[in-house]
Amino acid sequence: MSFSPADYSFMAQALKLAERGRYTARPNPMVGCVLVKDAQVIGSGWHQQAGQPHAEINALTAAATAGHDVTGATAYVTLEPCSHQGRTGPCADALIHAKVAKVIVAMQDPFAAVSGAGIARLQNAGITVEIGCLEAAATHLNRHFLYRATEHRPWVTVKLGMSLDGKIALENGHSQWITSAAARRDVQAYRAQYDAILTGADTVLADDPSMNVRSAELPQHVLQTLAQQNTDITLKQPACFIVDSKQRLSTHAKIMRSTSTVFGVNTVPSDSYGLAHFQQVSQSATGQCDLEQVLDWIARIPANAVWVEAGPQLVGALLDANLVNELIIYQAPIILGANAQSAFGIKTLDSLTQSIQLSTQSVTTVGTDIKHVLLVQKDRTH
Amino acid sequence: MSFSPADYSFMAQALKLAERGRYTARPNPMVGCVLVKDAQVIGSGWHQQAGQPHAEINALTAAATAGHDVTGATAYVTLEPCSHQGRTGPCADALIHAKVAKVIVAMQDPFAAVSGAGIARLQNAGITVEIGCLEAAATHLNRHFLYRATEHRPWVTVKLGMSLDGKIALENGHSQWITSAAARRDVQAYRAQYDAILTGADTVLADDPSMNVRSAELPQHVLQTLAQQNTDITLKQPACFIVDSKQRLSTHAKIMRSTSTVFGVNTVPSDSYGLAHFQQVSQSATGQCDLEQVLDWIARIPANAVWVEAGPQLVGALLDANLVNELIIYQAPIILGANAQSAFGIKTLDSLTQSIQLSTQSVTTVGTDIKHVLLVQKDRTH
Repeated sequence: MSFSPADYSFMAQALKLAERGRYTARPNPMVGCVLVKDAQVIGSGWHQQAGQPHAEINALTAAATAGHDVTGATAYVTLEPCSHQGRTGPCADALIHAKVAKVIVAMQDPFAAVSGAGIARLQNAGITVEIGCLEAAATHLNRHFLYRATEHRPWVTVKLGMSLDGKIALENGHSQWITSAAARRDVQAYRAQYDAILTGADTVLADDPSMNVRSAELPQHVLQTLAQQNTDITLKQPACFIVDSKQRLSTHAKIMRSTSTVFGVNTVPSDSYGLAHFQQVSQSATGQCDLEQVLDWIARIPANAVWVEAGPQLVGALLDANLVNELIIYQAPIILGANAQSAFGIKTLDSLTQSIQLSTQSVTTVGTDIKHVLLVQKDRTH
Repeated sequence: MSFSPADYSFMAQALKLAERGRYTARPNPMVGCVLVKDAQVIGSGWHQQAGQPHAEINALTAAATAGHDVTGATAYVTLEPCSHQGRTGPCADALIHAKVAKVIVAMQDPFAAVSGAGIARLQNAGITVEIGCLEAAATHLNRHFLYRATEHRPWVTVKLGMSLDGKIALENGHSQWITSAAARRDVQAYRAQYDAILTGADTVLADDPSMNVRSAELPQHVLQTLAQQNTDITLKQPACFIVDSKQRLSTHAKIMRSTSTVFGVNTVPSDSYGLAHFQQVSQSATGQCDLEQVLDWIARIPANAVWVEAGPQLVGALLDANLVNELIIYQAPIILGANAQSAFGIKTLDSLTQSIQLSTQSVTTVGTDIKHVLLVQKDRTH
């Protein structure tokens, strides 16, 4: 399929609109829609929040409100229009009813209830459908949603704040403020994009974190994006999952009084600290919680992706089980030395071919720290 | 002192010329000179190698060869002209003799034999002298030379190739090829800028390195710079210093047959492997070689700066002794885990305030690796 410069331009506008749902649309995908007639945009919209109208409906409503006749228009949509009756009607039907002549979509929706059916419905109604305009950008935008739709597991991002030599604490446990305030603000912007945070009892006991999103600490660009939504749409707190294989949590932990819903995870039938949400999972070979089960459970919350802020053991176990998709590392320009505590409690390697191979997506500075965004190569040998 | 845009432009040209001496001028400073009359460059030059004419002489010769009368010209020089009779005559006298009207220098030369005397000599001859044009750039250019001139010790740059988590080898010692071929080529360009390389017996025994500069592996930009010098000027090999506190070196080590001059360093009166160059130094409190004495000796070779490629013990001892100025770290996008060998064998820290604080000068990608250039903050608390 080949597209014109105008097609790329309108789809780029639709992708920018989709981005506005970054902090609110989940677990739905971010979607943007632009309606074009006689080379003019006559309506546009994006999906703001699950349960609210989809992008196509918002664009059609905007066109109608402005007095435009959509008949014969082209719709640019960043993801295949839905064909199923969810909490809102099928968008494919709305486009057919509005008599658009053509629909250009960035990519098919792999979600089982759509998966080509939306496109087929449009084509059966005599509408021309073209697929693949800026597909790579659309895929990257919704990588969390797409990963769960295809892999039936959440995308796992591990965040680490560490020294230049990969240390998170001294041998004696001292660890506060290794990374900068700017890095901590950046972390707030990430937490606001996830439906779930995963941590371990070690981290809760050592740092007593709140693990929530704090509006006052969100970077300005996040607040600006939020301000573009309807006034009834507010930021959701990610649910917090605590792996506590040794049942060491206390009701006094700050996280228990946090604004997030807290879920305990253990290998025994009940928790001892009265959490409303508790899940028993199987033991792994090493007597820890089976992490695939933990992720399966998180996916059902539902959550497309999970943000991990945890200690060396849990991070190492996730890496050893090959369950990590992405690492976001804030590296402070300090050296703590050989005897300090490593961030990566993975199994001892016998050969360099067993090392965890990463591919660098970006390296930037955040305050005085270096921020690495890395994808984990999934073909690790063991 | 305030300078005109034209002054900055001519001094920038002089600095670019000075840069051409990057691989050959040492242990002399890199210096460039531009002669300007009626807003036109009438002659320019740079210092190519110790024992060869200084930048000012080369510029005056170039002007004369081109048939220009230098009377009344302005000379832009990146470092104060010399006033002492070294292997070449004093440049201040040559400028006076050529009847220049004005000399603009980027910075005073702190070298004891000059240190303002060149400027005074010019002023006494009635020449206007202005100081400080692009001083920061000139200072950065010659930081190795300036450091030894003021601190009477060589500038110490430690190079490390390590994983993202600060590891240089597995627990079992496996360590080959952690960083990329591109990083190793980049290292060749650095070695070619140093008069001395410092390593330890550990590294010689583990990796059997040659520790020399290999023309065939030099990056293109280095070869281009070298090609701008006179044909009789060739690249010098850095001398190689091996700290061998436990007398473990063998005459079979590749480094013993390298193109570099090899110096042994020990705490006993003689070496057991017949090195032509050998130095006894005092024992440190921990029974190792006293590293300040090692650096003092290196400075007298003479060497303005030393490039360190060593294992965790020697790197750690240099850092613990607060003797490191700069770290150049190639960080491969792999994780080797908590039990792998750390690059930094420093003493165990009791408090985060004791951590080695660095300031990031640049972060770039070299092949698939991330290259950090960092300065060590010298006010570390112990």
